[in-house]
Amino acid sequence: MKDFVFHNPTKIVFGEGTVSQIGDEARAYGKKALLVYGMGSVKTNGVYDQVVSSLQEAGLEIVEYPGVKSNPLMSYARDGVELAKKEQVDVVVALGGGSVIDTSKSICAGAVTETDIIEFFVFTSTVETALPLLTVLTIPAAGSEMNGGMVLTNDETLDKLGTCNYPPLYPRVSILDPTVTYTIPADYTAFSAADAMSHLLEGYWSHQDEWTPIQDRYVEGLCKSIMEAAERTLANPTDYQGRATLMWAATMAFNDLSSSGVGPIYFPCHMLEHPLSAIYDIPHGAGLSITMLAWTAYAAENCNTARIAQLARNIMGVTEDDDLAAAKEGIETFRQWLEKIGSYTCFADAGIPESDIDKITERTAFLADLWGITEHGYNADSISGIYRMCGPFKDE
Amino acid sequence: MKDFVFHNPTKIVFGEGTVSQIGDEARAYGKKALLVYGMGSVKTNGVYDQVVSSLQEAGLEIVEYPGVKSNPLMSYARDGVELAKKEQVDVVVALGGGSVIDTSKSICAGAVTETDIIEFFVFTSTVETALPLLTVLTIPAAGSEMNGGMVLTNDETLDKLGTCNYPPLYPRVSILDPTVTYTIPADYTAFSAADAMSHLLEGYWSHQDEWTPIQDRYVEGLCKSIMEAAERTLANPTDYQGRATLMWAATMAFNDLSSSGVGPIYFPCHMLEHPLSAIYDIPHGAGLSITMLAWTAYAAENCNTARIAQLARNIMGVTEDDDLAAAKEGIETFRQWLEKIGSYTCFADAGIPESDIDKITERTAFLADLWGITEHGYNADSISGIYRMCGPFKDE
Repeated sequence: MKDFVFHNPTKIVFGEGTVSQIGDEARAYGKKALLVYGMGSVKTNGVYDQVVSSLQEAGLEIVEYPGVKSNPLMSYARDGVELAKKEQVDVVVALGGGSVIDTSKSICAGAVTETDIIEFFVFTSTVETALPLLTVLTIPAAGSEMNGGMVLTNDETLDKLGTCNYPPLYPRVSILDPTVTYTIPADYTAFSAADAMSHLLEGYWSHQDEWTPIQDRYVEGLCKSIMEAAERTLANPTDYQGRATLMWAATMAFNDLSSSGVGPIYFPCHMLEHPLSAIYDIPHGAGLSITMLAWTAYAAENCNTARIAQLARNIMGVTEDDDLAAAKEGIETFRQWLEKIGSYTCFADAGIPESDIDKITERTAFLADLWGITEHGYNADSISGIYRMCGPFKDE
Repeated sequence: MKDFVFHNPTKIVFGEGTVSQIGDEARAYGKKALLVYGMGSVKTNGVYDQVVSSLQEAGLEIVEYPGVKSNPLMSYARDGVELAKKEQVDVVVALGGGSVIDTSKSICAGAVTETDIIEFFVFTSTVETALPLLTVLTIPAAGSEMNGGMVLTNDETLDKLGTCNYPPLYPRVSILDPTVTYTIPADYTAFSAADAMSHLLEGYWSHQDEWTPIQDRYVEGLCKSIMEAAERTLANPTDYQGRATLMWAATMAFNDLSSSGVGPIYFPCHMLEHPLSAIYDIPHGAGLSITMLAWTAYAAENCNTARIAQLARNIMGVTEDDDLAAAKEGIETFRQWLEKIGSYTCFADAGIPESDIDKITERTAFLADLWGITEHGYNADSISGIYRMCGPFKDE
């Protein structure tokens, strides 16, 4: 085990009917709230009404900032920063999934400074202070409800940029009511499961530490639970236990526990995916399904054979003794499972032709450099080589 | 999964050489620290000197309160409260294991009120505010370094009393350096492993929820890791990976994660053990080894067969299909493992004669009532029946 600091102060309120607690929780942080949400699904499923009523009953004045889209844009977050400043809000309430929460985090960070928020993403500035953030989670996938990171797409360059954990950006309170996720469609349920698994697996597959049984079993246990719960939920979208397990597992998947003690980790599948959802606006979890399969196929041959084999044996039921053979069998089992739940597994699913690989590779190489992981062998050649394993491709 | 609130704000600083960070961490909380420690082992292994130097270099004035014994006494904590008040300390630094940390928590709670600290243990008062606490952990077992509970023995009645989690008592910072545990003797290493496992297993064995795969695998994974790490450490007391795994696993075992979402749990093995360490002053983990074996033997026949069988299959390697037979085989495997690592397994090991059972039972029945778990069938008859399964007994 390697040295680490773990400090996750987010309060989680979990259970059916908890949405109405948002007002009581928020009033501890101020009198005027910026309510950030998305494209309107929270209005059709009734969650918006519950949140507004609760905030109003708690005496908070509400300024609304709707319209956050999935794969959220830096420009839209900037406009939110301006609104938060103009309205002098005390607190931000994010009602949504990772896109809404990450936009809200940028607003929290940007509202208390003159620094442009892009600086927090390209690491020319750090978030030293921020408005307090509370979240009401509606899509369990990103884990942003219990961590200090955020992801936004720079719409000028189509680079989807992610930050490290900034301590001021851990939500003060996150409310997780599994019943609000009943209306997530089957495809997004599958994409979300893949997203949560990637947060667990990228560190697990790529880390190099000598002995990490606590973290390994933590990851393996959560992945098995996500897989079981996804299947229950796809069979019955209002299965409370399945939805609850997906929700808590997605939060536990990216709350710093799986990575504490395993040493420096990096996120190769996220690096490979970000340009896909930035350029083609596909769901992030769908893109991760593709890049997890391609990256593991590459890494099993090149760098992380034993770790990929370990996962194959411990959660995919592989009994093969040889590491490379076990890894390959595990990847194929994972591919079949992703297909079964209805996630993407190749560029054809995402509508991406092979001829776009050079264009995508250029943005990925930029991320490899920005995130300081070129040392792991990620250059234009190796990156485009991995993308060439993402076939079949869209017909041209 | 059941509803829950999870909020654990303790910052963990983990790794070799981290003890010297205590000064930097503590100075954020004040200028005058009460340094609480035990019977002197921290002076012989050098940790005391590191802590004092670090606090002094950070500019803190130190008031010392040494002499906390294992199975710590309420009277000694009360004296600490008086000292903290008299010296008007700003912050408490606990240097030790669970006994020192729990004494320190009582001091933190008692120093800011006129309420006698026993009221926090018999639930006639609650801890609303407290001095800030930081810990430097030297014995990984109790988990108190990352939770809000505490245990003290009322020396007037010999009742060992425990509290619920009081939010103000979560340590602000806990420093976990595995190398300071190299000098823990083999027997206490074994007792500590048993103690940590009991924190995970009592809720796992006794809860009644319908589907908790996340929590079940969390518990199973940590238990397996504790067992492997205990064996590594007993074979080589300075095995860093073994010590590090025991340390982080013991913290993770009792930081509210294993119990979040499983509904109300209770601690029958702790209830049965507390009178043993209170009356006979045996190590708490040694007593828990005995009561875990006796309680599971009772519960397998009476109330929690399936859960005990599940653990037997998932971590003890039992393949038996029948639940009761699997449970019994698992308990026997656990007994053999506890014997192998050198923990206690019966009253004879603890020097307790069978004729004392009535006396012990009286105090246990008091705890069952105080903790509100008589509804689970714990009365003098059932309790003494469980103790009668703790043989062989001390010769009389």
